[in-house]
Amino acid sequence: MTPRTLHVTVPDEGWVDSLADLDGVDLTVWDMVTPQPDRHVDLAVRPYTTLADGLASLDPSRLSVIQSQALGYDGVADTLPAGITYCNAVGVHEESTAELAVALLLASQREVDRYARERGEWNRHFTGSLIDRRLLILGAGGIGVQLVNRLDGFGAELVRVARHRRTDERGVIHGQDELMELLPTVDAVLLAVPLTDETTSLVDDDFLARLPDGAIVVNVSRGKVVDTDAVVRQGGRIRLAADVTDPEPLPSEHALWLTPGVLISPHVGGMSSAMRPRIEAVVRRQVARLLGGLPPEDVVLG
Amino acid sequence: MTPRTLHVTVPDEGWVDSLADLDGVDLTVWDMVTPQPDRHVDLAVRPYTTLADGLASLDPSRLSVIQSQALGYDGVADTLPAGITYCNAVGVHEESTAELAVALLLASQREVDRYARERGEWNRHFTGSLIDRRLLILGAGGIGVQLVNRLDGFGAELVRVARHRRTDERGVIHGQDELMELLPTVDAVLLAVPLTDETTSLVDDDFLARLPDGAIVVNVSRGKVVDTDAVVRQGGRIRLAADVTDPEPLPSEHALWLTPGVLISPHVGGMSSAMRPRIEAVVRRQVARLLGGLPPEDVVLG
Repeated sequence: MTPRTLHVTVPDEGWVDSLADLDGVDLTVWDMVTPQPDRHVDLAVRPYTTLADGLASLDPSRLSVIQSQALGYDGVADTLPAGITYCNAVGVHEESTAELAVALLLASQREVDRYARERGEWNRHFTGSLIDRRLLILGAGGIGVQLVNRLDGFGAELVRVARHRRTDERGVIHGQDELMELLPTVDAVLLAVPLTDETTSLVDDDFLARLPDGAIVVNVSRGKVVDTDAVVRQGGRIRLAADVTDPEPLPSEHALWLTPGVLISPHVGGMSSAMRPRIEAVVRRQVARLLGGLPPEDVVLG
Repeated sequence: MTPRTLHVTVPDEGWVDSLADLDGVDLTVWDMVTPQPDRHVDLAVRPYTTLADGLASLDPSRLSVIQSQALGYDGVADTLPAGITYCNAVGVHEESTAELAVALLLASQREVDRYARERGEWNRHFTGSLIDRRLLILGAGGIGVQLVNRLDGFGAELVRVARHRRTDERGVIHGQDELMELLPTVDAVLLAVPLTDETTSLVDDDFLARLPDGAIVVNVSRGKVVDTDAVVRQGGRIRLAADVTDPEPLPSEHALWLTPGVLISPHVGGMSSAMRPRIEAVVRRQVARLLGGLPPEDVVLG
């Protein structure tokens, strides 16, 4: 049943070079935008995108497995033809995304964004800190775990919230039914949840109103988890440090850019030097499994 | 021998309010700039400054102990009259300064400073990260230890260097005689050393030349540990994220402000919300010791 040679497509020539040492693999370049190859593709590595575009027209009779380079796959279920297996990129972006969340949180608390803009000024005053503060981490998946790893040494109390209340070796993880009553007790909320019906516009006027003055929301999940207009309305009282926005990309004239206390990065959570070695390792693992007659890992659809 | 009532001076009325609950203490305001009180002062809390100014004219017959709010005390030995005891602020700034160092390092690696300046643009590209990198921490004192605590969870290899080679529960701490040969192997150097003859201009042309392209120097120690002109010369190849500069304050027209890859904060390492509760605890501890007839803690001179 195992194919003698696995036909793998990769998004560019750089990938061909990276995987040139693989035995039993026929590597060709396909960007998944140009027409689908005539011959059967066992494994197609998608270009790095978080969008679901361009999947609907794929012919499942000539394509078995798609390996995404992204962790999120919102919208894919609506467009992917039946018969194609879709794998997300687990273990590729979590560390890098959590790192950016901490970078944004620290920059906001210590006002590094202001220093970056005020070059030439020597304008000293006291700022906030993570020390002695309570930081709520919403989501106990891959990014949530990596947030805990990184924030552990900063002298803050970490308040973890996930779907269901439970305990682990660190102590209690609160359930989402406790979220709204925890908000007035914390100085920051870090969002590390997938976009679902439940999390869409989770951070709305009511959510923000429960946070104490000066609290900060850090969003590295999906833009639609936060109601942008509510943040603009509460700007000055509540702060936002976000790698994702709604709409996205955020138009240059949008009010959120200049809302007081708002710091925005352009959806680059996973776009660091940590990504390439990790996604390459994922692809190598999938190739080895398929060559060995095993199903692929991290199947989210199909 | 214990005075019935301890005469303590504090730099402003806010301090009088904070310490109003203390028994056995006579609190008055003295900013240490206006003339010294006629009556004897057992303990004078200095205003928060890292400078040695204004100490030379003090009369040691009417002043026993000075409690500084700063950790550094360079220059104090040259000006403090004999007979006055000088205590630095241990445990007050280390965490906050280490936090700012990590904030600056992360902002530089993930280019948060650029995003802060480019408000209105959605300019995505890959950046550096701490993940998989080697970070050299120079100095194993209070700030060095707090740097290790904070950087531990970021997926980087921490290379610790102190005066003398030794091992502890984390492994080896390299000696300073190994420093120059370690530099080509690391992606970042975090400076957490006091200013001494040995550390003055430690980071010079030779030091920077040994670092790989794109490496970053983070300075939260003292400005004079880094040769500013050498950084300007190597700008673009080497990066600097510094809370301290030479000269300091850095004049608005100085070339360092706009040197490529340079991010500067205006000596605010200790100036966060973490400071006040910690320095207040130090003062309360010193008062309790003096009331109990014990010598003060953290004596650095006298």
